[in-house]
Amino acid sequence: RIDGKRLWDSLMAMAEIGATPKGGVRRLTLTDVDKDGRARFRGWCETLDLKVRVDAMGNMFARREGRDPTRLPVLMGSHLDSQPTGGKFDGALGVIAGLEVMRTLHELNIQTEAPVELINWTDEEGSRFGRSLMGSGVWAGVYPQDAAYGWADIDGVTVSDALDRIGAKGEHPAKPFPADAYFELHIEQGPILEREGKQVGVVTGAQAQVWWDAVVTGQDAHAGTTPPSARKDALLTAARIIALVDEMMRAHGDDGRGTVGWLQVVNASRNVVPGEVRFSVEFRHPETAAIEAIAAAFPQRAAEIANANRTPLDLKELFLLPHQPFDPGCVGIVREASARLGYTTRDIISGAGHDAVYVARSVPTAMIFTPCKDGLSHNEAESIEPEEAEAGTQVLFQAVLARANR
Amino acid sequence: RIDGKRLWDSLMAMAEIGATPKGGVRRLTLTDVDKDGRARFRGWCETLDLKVRVDAMGNMFARREGRDPTRLPVLMGSHLDSQPTGGKFDGALGVIAGLEVMRTLHELNIQTEAPVELINWTDEEGSRFGRSLMGSGVWAGVYPQDAAYGWADIDGVTVSDALDRIGAKGEHPAKPFPADAYFELHIEQGPILEREGKQVGVVTGAQAQVWWDAVVTGQDAHAGTTPPSARKDALLTAARIIALVDEMMRAHGDDGRGTVGWLQVVNASRNVVPGEVRFSVEFRHPETAAIEAIAAAFPQRAAEIANANRTPLDLKELFLLPHQPFDPGCVGIVREASARLGYTTRDIISGAGHDAVYVARSVPTAMIFTPCKDGLSHNEAESIEPEEAEAGTQVLFQAVLARANR
Ligand SMILES: NC(=O)NCCC(=O)O
Ligand SMILES: NC(=O)NCCC(=O)O
Repeated sequence: RIDGKRLWDSLMAMAEIGATPKGGVRRLTLTDVDKDGRARFRGWCETLDLKVRVDAMGNMFARREGRDPTRLPVLMGSHLDSQPTGGKFDGALGVIAGLEVMRTLHELNIQTEAPVELINWTDEEGSRFGRSLMGSGVWAGVYPQDAAYGWADIDGVTVSDALDRIGAKGEHPAKPFPADAYFELHIEQGPILEREGKQVGVVTGAQAQVWWDAVVTGQDAHAGTTPPSARKDALLTAARIIALVDEMMRAHGDDGRGTVGWLQVVNASRNVVPGEVRFSVEFRHPETAAIEAIAAAFPQRAAEIANANRTPLDLKELFLLPHQPFDPGCVGIVREASARLGYTTRDIISGAGHDAVYVARSVPTAMIFTPCKDGLSHNEAESIEPEEAEAGTQVLFQAVLARANR
Repeated sequence: RIDGKRLWDSLMAMAEIGATPKGGVRRLTLTDVDKDGRARFRGWCETLDLKVRVDAMGNMFARREGRDPTRLPVLMGSHLDSQPTGGKFDGALGVIAGLEVMRTLHELNIQTEAPVELINWTDEEGSRFGRSLMGSGVWAGVYPQDAAYGWADIDGVTVSDALDRIGAKGEHPAKPFPADAYFELHIEQGPILEREGKQVGVVTGAQAQVWWDAVVTGQDAHAGTTPPSARKDALLTAARIIALVDEMMRAHGDDGRGTVGWLQVVNASRNVVPGEVRFSVEFRHPETAAIEAIAAAFPQRAAEIANANRTPLDLKELFLLPHQPFDPGCVGIVREASARLGYTTRDIISGAGHDAVYVARSVPTAMIFTPCKDGLSHNEAESIEPEEAEAGTQVLFQAVLARANR
């Protein structure tokens, strides 16, 4: 069995890095704080004699050899980066739980048949450079590495420069290698498990998403002298598009998701009619067809609003991620491990994107969810109980062990 | 007669300070760029042997003595600060025109009966510290100086610190002194004079305004997992309030003005339902009663929207400025000077706030408008013709001379 206290202590130690006054974490990808988190992670791995390699996207792989040199590795992992005002567990739980699996194997002197590797993926959150699942996305071949290197944050710092600046650009190529399976433990980030009193979520797949960058161009003008008829108010257009996103989300009932999370009024001033507004748009739905329909309809409806307001809209689709089903074999291992351990479970579809979604394109994959308080995530108040973390990690341990020794 | 070429050259010289690539000016109040503008202005004044004094708000007064020591001074002025992406003429025209008046008096060796003073008011624009007409507002007693000293910009720098940092806090008290009249030349910043082909606007007063700071509090939540029914989206609320501002503006037809010029999503991230949004709101109308009605109705209607969305709204009224009529005697002087010079004129109400509005509370005041291209202002493309600047300055010269020698 894994050590619940040791797990929790390491979770709290990681949460000190980038801790915010309100009890959350701000460990934005490829910042100095992320660098500190990576260093602590590497130190812990090296204490266990794991061999750590880093690829060209900064993805970190900590390897424990198995008995049989012909066997492909069993992978586990998640991410250490956070939202600007994120919680202690989104991502970190999966990495630290993987560490606890490694520690348990080490302590119990277990030699698995297959090698086991623990991964810390770079920039899962996507809040800094605009695409979530960046490290795993390049690794999986979804994004060409050169393209990703050129993406810039709001200050114009590119991914390539950010990697170099904190010394995170490794020498290994960022591309898939043969692997036997990938397991990722994560908090649910939604309310379902908590509401139904289940200890473990058996994740069968992840919902579809589409993301855009939007720029509305109006005309800066004096707020006091410019009559209604002469205004080209870019913020008013953005406001009407925000209402459209909400309307299109609600048309899909409880399964709909539509969000404008980021918005900037360029050169904003209180007494200036805004001339340029930039914002993000994303929609999600469990079914690919629903997202494809939205991806077809939204640009035109938004453009109609913008044109009616004489403020042209420039929309750039960043990605469209179809629904990703997980591997039935791996999902079965998670379900059986949970049952063996006596945990109450429920099959669930992930509302969030996860690195597992891209890994699943080349490696048989499954995920394990633990409940989180009030379903809250991407919030400093994100919270889970030590027993919940322990249960999820126990399942991860059993699943990895079962797969590595099968 | 004033020297149109010298006037234009000095306007262009001032526009070099804070020049933007798009041909505009960024000379935000109490920044290093503003400091440079002040220094150049002071240098020009001192060349003419004007005595420059500075008050506790950084307002600068350049005095030319008159023949009769018992006469009260005739004042003229405007402001050298600009919007974040402002033009070359908003404010600067009035100051540099005043300088040209002084140069002409100097060159022609004219000794006026009354003293003449040229003023550069601090922070007319209000884009940095939240209240427009700050320097003249404290001077006029509208804002207590201690309160204004404590106002902070978005980085937390207070007015007091900003004044100290650029050495702009003078020793003279910022309060009204006896004066005979105040004349301010300014670009119209609207389309009326240009549309009607008039060379000079005889400003009879300025419209009423009300400004607010708004904060909407929702709850940060994961964009992928949080169902519509569980969302408390602060940006959606702000968007609906922006639409309300537009609706309330349009209810007043062509006289209505309603603007959300500044908005910030706090800790914004693309995949986070926004938990906090801050924005500015302002309305204007030629009639005080209309603004009072809006000031009474808007907070309640906005709160209803916010509450329906379960995201409370905190509204803080920054100021309510009633319609300010100008002094009939001074307005008459402007009208007569224009007629004498053979310019086509039109009476006009100012859509913008101007320092003249506060000065008018204790000193007989009038303003002179010149047309500007396409009515554009608070925009880097703001533009006027040299002949227009010359005409307005000629009227200013004649008006000041007439009043100082009456
Ligand atoms: N797990 C998680 O929060 N991922 C961030 C990517 C997304 O789903 O928006
Ligand atoms: N003249 C001018 O643009 N003043 C700024 C204050 C305002 O009217 O908003």
